[in-house]
Amino acid sequence: MKHKKFPKIPEATIKRLSIYNRILNELNRDGIEVVSSARLSEISGLNAAQIRKDLTYFGEFGVRGVGYFVTHLRDNIKRILGINKQWNLIIIGVGKLGQAIISYGNLKAQGYNIVAAFDNDPSKIGTKIGPFNTPVYPMSKLAEIVNQHSVKIAILTTPASSAQEVMKSLDESNIEGIINFAPVKLKSSKNIKISYVDLVTEFDKMAFKISSD
Amino acid sequence: MKHKKFPKIPEATIKRLSIYNRILNELNRDGIEVVSSARLSEISGLNAAQIRKDLTYFGEFGVRGVGYFVTHLRDNIKRILGINKQWNLIIIGVGKLGQAIISYGNLKAQGYNIVAAFDNDPSKIGTKIGPFNTPVYPMSKLAEIVNQHSVKIAILTTPASSAQEVMKSLDESNIEGIINFAPVKLKSSKNIKISYVDLVTEFDKMAFKISSD
Repeated sequence: MKHKKFPKIPEATIKRLSIYNRILNELNRDGIEVVSSARLSEISGLNAAQIRKDLTYFGEFGVRGVGYFVTHLRDNIKRILGINKQWNLIIIGVGKLGQAIISYGNLKAQGYNIVAAFDNDPSKIGTKIGPFNTPVYPMSKLAEIVNQHSVKIAILTTPASSAQEVMKSLDESNIEGIINFAPVKLKSSKNIKISYVDLVTEFDKMAFKISSD
Repeated sequence: MKHKKFPKIPEATIKRLSIYNRILNELNRDGIEVVSSARLSEISGLNAAQIRKDLTYFGEFGVRGVGYFVTHLRDNIKRILGINKQWNLIIIGVGKLGQAIISYGNLKAQGYNIVAAFDNDPSKIGTKIGPFNTPVYPMSKLAEIVNQHSVKIAILTTPASSAQEVMKSLDESNIEGIINFAPVKLKSSKNIKISYVDLVTEFDKMAFKISSD
């Protein structure tokens, strides 16, 4: 699964590839075989020249006057992103946000499979939750479940106050990346990659857009 | 509340200002009065030169050998972002994700006050939900509540299938911006600003980071 071919793709480009992938999946579902950059621009709201530039960068030139072949382009993008296979995930913290993510069907549809949830609440441990019957385990089972399902990515949805303590268990497991929804900066003693999802930033961006209009 | 002074700040800079604001709030809470760009870099994980550049751009030069005055810098950033006042919000769709956002104390702490929720489920309408007793109204009340509380921003957490229909009610109200969590592209017949929050993109970015490592 290693691909050293495109090591320095900027994060903004990755984000756009992720968007193209979603759109191409939908087009394919609707039976559409060929799509132009103009149409991709219309659906995504992104600039058509930017789209052509992004795709040229990945060796996709399309067919002049026709467009891109939907499944071919999608499969290449999936390969570049590393999502041409299913990813097994775990989630830690089964509060409201954790439950919302567990129930979010779109993740599964995109190849992300939450195989287990973890919590320290005895009333939750041992139950199965959400539409996919995700089992809830105690934290003590983390390293074992991670190995059993070859999990590399953990979703962190605990309160901020317990997130750093959870990091200890993650550092002792084979987890390679954490998507952190807890509003706190985490320190990994190993080289675990951590991305921060902060909802407040989205609100600040919108507040700025409206205020400065 | 209009400020034409910085009309062309890139979104990436706005995102960093939002992060600085959060850090400065925490430093202030801890009684810290002065902070260096090196310390801001350490806490945020952002590059110190980038931080100095961002702040110079907004006329903040700090004090040589000392740093930035925490509350002064924070207040200026809040003013630039347009968050030096409280924003009243509404949320449409009281499913799991909607409930998670309603319960998210960090939003209120940052000046975002969800004054009302809307849903079409009769068993939810008329109740008050979450830790802040947010009242749930039917969609027919939307325009009225928006005016009553001078709401400009709506959070959309309905299923994708009903999001476009909800847009009709929003277009008929005085809402100016929508933060859309529904995985669907929306069309506004007015000039409502729409931002898309797509959790799958975060997962794709992490999958790429791990695959390309």
